[in-house]
Amino acid sequence: MIQKKLEVTYRPFDKATRVPSGTTLFSAAHWIGLPIDSTCGGRGTCGKCKVQVIEGAKEVTIADRKELTAAELEAGWRLSCQAKVYQDTICLVPQLLRVPKAATMGVNRLVLLDPNVRKAYVELAEPSLEDQRSDVERLQDALTAEGHDMKADLAVLSTLPTVLRAAGFKVTAVLGGDQLISVEPGDTRDESYGVAFDLGTTTLVGTLMNLRTGMAEAVRSTLNGQAPFGADVISRISHAMSGSAALAELQAAVLATMNGILRELYEMAGVSRDRVYETVIVGNATMLHLLLGIDPAPIGVVPFTPAFRDPLYLPAREIGLEIHENGRIQTLPILGAYVGADIVGGIVATGLAREEKLRVFVDVGTNGEIAVGSSRRLLATAAPAGPAFEGSQIKCGMRATEGAIEGVTLTAGRVELQVIGGDVAPTGICGSGLVDIVAQLRVVGLVDASGKMKSREEAPEHPLSDCLIVVDGVRAFLLADGIYLTQRDIRELQFAKGSIATGIKVLMDILGVTAADLDEVLLGGSFGSYLNPESAKIIGLVPAVDVDRILSVGNTAGEGAKMTLLSFRERQVAFELPAAIEYVELSGRTDFNDSFVSVLGFPELGAVA
Amino acid sequence: MIQKKLEVTYRPFDKATRVPSGTTLFSAAHWIGLPIDSTCGGRGTCGKCKVQVIEGAKEVTIADRKELTAAELEAGWRLSCQAKVYQDTICLVPQLLRVPKAATMGVNRLVLLDPNVRKAYVELAEPSLEDQRSDVERLQDALTAEGHDMKADLAVLSTLPTVLRAAGFKVTAVLGGDQLISVEPGDTRDESYGVAFDLGTTTLVGTLMNLRTGMAEAVRSTLNGQAPFGADVISRISHAMSGSAALAELQAAVLATMNGILRELYEMAGVSRDRVYETVIVGNATMLHLLLGIDPAPIGVVPFTPAFRDPLYLPAREIGLEIHENGRIQTLPILGAYVGADIVGGIVATGLAREEKLRVFVDVGTNGEIAVGSSRRLLATAAPAGPAFEGSQIKCGMRATEGAIEGVTLTAGRVELQVIGGDVAPTGICGSGLVDIVAQLRVVGLVDASGKMKSREEAPEHPLSDCLIVVDGVRAFLLADGIYLTQRDIRELQFAKGSIATGIKVLMDILGVTAADLDEVLLGGSFGSYLNPESAKIIGLVPAVDVDRILSVGNTAGEGAKMTLLSFRERQVAFELPAAIEYVELSGRTDFNDSFVSVLGFPELGAVA
Repeated sequence: MIQKKLEVTYRPFDKATRVPSGTTLFSAAHWIGLPIDSTCGGRGTCGKCKVQVIEGAKEVTIADRKELTAAELEAGWRLSCQAKVYQDTICLVPQLLRVPKAATMGVNRLVLLDPNVRKAYVELAEPSLEDQRSDVERLQDALTAEGHDMKADLAVLSTLPTVLRAAGFKVTAVLGGDQLISVEPGDTRDESYGVAFDLGTTTLVGTLMNLRTGMAEAVRSTLNGQAPFGADVISRISHAMSGSAALAELQAAVLATMNGILRELYEMAGVSRDRVYETVIVGNATMLHLLLGIDPAPIGVVPFTPAFRDPLYLPAREIGLEIHENGRIQTLPILGAYVGADIVGGIVATGLAREEKLRVFVDVGTNGEIAVGSSRRLLATAAPAGPAFEGSQIKCGMRATEGAIEGVTLTAGRVELQVIGGDVAPTGICGSGLVDIVAQLRVVGLVDASGKMKSREEAPEHPLSDCLIVVDGVRAFLLADGIYLTQRDIRELQFAKGSIATGIKVLMDILGVTAADLDEVLLGGSFGSYLNPESAKIIGLVPAVDVDRILSVGNTAGEGAKMTLLSFRERQVAFELPAAIEYVELSGRTDFNDSFVSVLGFPELGAVA
Repeated sequence: MIQKKLEVTYRPFDKATRVPSGTTLFSAAHWIGLPIDSTCGGRGTCGKCKVQVIEGAKEVTIADRKELTAAELEAGWRLSCQAKVYQDTICLVPQLLRVPKAATMGVNRLVLLDPNVRKAYVELAEPSLEDQRSDVERLQDALTAEGHDMKADLAVLSTLPTVLRAAGFKVTAVLGGDQLISVEPGDTRDESYGVAFDLGTTTLVGTLMNLRTGMAEAVRSTLNGQAPFGADVISRISHAMSGSAALAELQAAVLATMNGILRELYEMAGVSRDRVYETVIVGNATMLHLLLGIDPAPIGVVPFTPAFRDPLYLPAREIGLEIHENGRIQTLPILGAYVGADIVGGIVATGLAREEKLRVFVDVGTNGEIAVGSSRRLLATAAPAGPAFEGSQIKCGMRATEGAIEGVTLTAGRVELQVIGGDVAPTGICGSGLVDIVAQLRVVGLVDASGKMKSREEAPEHPLSDCLIVVDGVRAFLLADGIYLTQRDIRELQFAKGSIATGIKVLMDILGVTAADLDEVLLGGSFGSYLNPESAKIIGLVPAVDVDRILSVGNTAGEGAKMTLLSFRERQVAFELPAAIEYVELSGRTDFNDSFVSVLGFPELGAVA
């Protein structure tokens, strides 16, 4: 799996990057923020992205021969979107995109507004006895002249005769890549939208993006309609295994939720469905399988194999998603059964594979999805964490909704609680609260490194000794009226954090790095955003780095979806990630089992400081 | 439009051909019957079709680089399926397909049995923790190893997890080109079928072909269900113009007929629908538009533009055609509004574009579709003939069904009739009978070169003078009780044949050839098959060549559909035809109008002998 990276240098900027073999010069430039010009989306049809190869292979592609002159070919000019790197390369970039429109998204990533969906307004010559080209050819020729490739499926082909003639042959062609999505009368270039979907097991988030301005027009999040069929991926898979009707039921449930979100987004933003041409969908492998009606059963059992990993681009009507009736769905690639398109989105959003900084990225949930590395080398894995972080299997646990204790401080003998909803009475403990409580109990000396809680008898002088209680014969710590943390809850947390910590350790060991080498630790996902970095460090969930290097980075999966919706270059980067990332399977690894036992306990407090 | 043809020579066979610029070395070889080996269908993925380019351009394609060694590239070896000819070329063919399975089809054409639909039986390695490739990748890798490219749509992707596991990972992949159509448990290579459809305005013919043996398993023909909406293309278009409901109605009508034919074919041959993977459909441009639900209105009015001309390959379910639920429809290309895929099929079946012989090919119907030329240069056009040849607008005219007079001989004062159905009483005159009667009347001197029929008074001594009658004040010739040919019928025929004859003349004039230069005249279509060649010549429908050079070639459109179903090479040839054929639009041509007047009369009998 370990590939030698190749060095690519761009003059006159003298910017360089290291990329996997097979990356195009165009994509590699984008990795380091060089916006090489293009109007065709890297399809080799507009000719704008040409560069002069000074050192390196100069294979001539068919597109080169079509777009470049013999003299240019002779001088080493090549279309950078077609030129794949198979050795170290130096090239000269004559022209960058002038005044590129860009926005900061994800984790400080500058994203060029350059969507896969493009609109081209064309005024076609009307047919005559001297020019009997078919409607398709007429449109195709006009688009080719503007640098666009185009292919039309029956859905749009069947609209052509009527639309072209009603519009006097002045129309706007809507392209998703080279796929003709729609032909609209007149000039509609001002109206172009897409939706970024983050398909969480628990929560779905849809963001309606204006592809013209790059701005979010509306956001809507709601519970996944599959919730009644089980709280986590495994229970959803179990339900799907009860027959094809159950699989259809799960698919219908998530689609109903998504279509509900879409209707609300259209309503909120005042945007018509038939101006929404594309949606980028991220989610874990199981969620994507269920959305597409593909049996996820083999994901649930050894040896954990998905039906597909490649990104899919398909008509939204094939599953009944209510965007433009000929609109397209784009899924991001999957790395493995438990490292899905959500993590690929996260890696896009964090730039993990593109920056020199050595970083750990963890999305904590019922599975901990982990990526460790930099542009030099990047590893990814998934560690089963169980439901503790979602508040399940915890005596007084609950989801992170109103009334949940999400933060705790134990100082001067007082228990200070931070409750979701502000001044409401606490009704339970959510994941981030759980981590906080245990970390604080460690700090105040009421839980030892092995995870054992002191009894009131063992700590009679402690200012918080009144909170040490016994419930059903088990030691517990009282947080509020009727709400407490039990010894067993601590054990649950130890298993959950131990699994993730081990996953991180295995990857760091493979890379041969230690905590001291790390530049940053990024906590992603909705849970990661609420996690107290210091607490995460105290319980040993993340490696022992300075607390200010532990960053909550929010919903990176959703950010990745938005970025790849707004920029075909980012989408290309996402597509290339599976080849750039080494996937590590933890099941059956002896070092995973060995490490797991060794990290079940908590770090010594000294090591934490 | 006139392109310079390029010379390609194949050693050691020293066979040569002239092809349009851009033709591949692989296709050009097939044009002259050299069966270069291939298992991938000319997609550049099996590497078997390599040839050594001795003279000519040696551009290296990406596929070359993947399949050939550096030493081979250096020595001029190229994949012939990727190597396009842009200059005269000489190459060496190391290996032909050994013992190719072939059949004689169409007009003496040897067709290699090498269908676009391929079945590959693979035994996949089962997934393990060491090999977590997705189901798609697992299959893809195995097929790649056998030289096949593969892409999967959602319809087949969603079947993969279940089928692979139920079959113990021993499956047969069904590919239509590089499109994965189906994955079937076990080894099903013995069962592979397709259907060739000839979509006539009047009659639909479906032939169930065994893609394994190349044999027709069953044939079924029936009236086009669109008949109630009008007898000819123009009346169908008129109906379609009455609104989108009418268009849908026409589409539903032809689909109902086709699905009826399919059910009967399956029943007759004992073949299951889910073993029928592909159908090749030929028909005129209007029929193809209506089948696909595309408004044909612009075909019906000046300047006669179809919505599309390129061949389409689409899932049969998109229009509801009842072959395998993920099977594919292939349409052949259209040359112009009135020279459709039926004529392209005919040109494939006759080899018109591939042989040195100079030939005229005419498909006579309400439109005369005409192609004139050879492998050196080929022109095509359509001439509006009106309904006379179909028996319409003729006083005692009828379709070619039981009771129709289809042949007439006038000798020794006797009228001998040939009636469809044998010994039944004649009930009318069909197209071929009409041509025969007028030709015989010319021969016996009862119709002059201007088309004027003699009255009984003008030919009192003629042995057939008793047959010369007057009906409603118009001269007529009595054939049988109540059945006669009127002077007005002769005028109708003159217009019909004059239009077609003019079309032929215009093309011959452009080519600069005369009747003496012609090697053959081919009469195609169901009408052409019944036409008496001598009569056709006497009335001047076809150029004055020796009668034994006028050949009825039958349903060439259907033959072309079968050939392109059985041989991807023939299909490739069909796809390349639009670039090789010059389409001539007759409307508005002054030479058409001038010629038309000059050929309305009949040839002098001396010229005919």
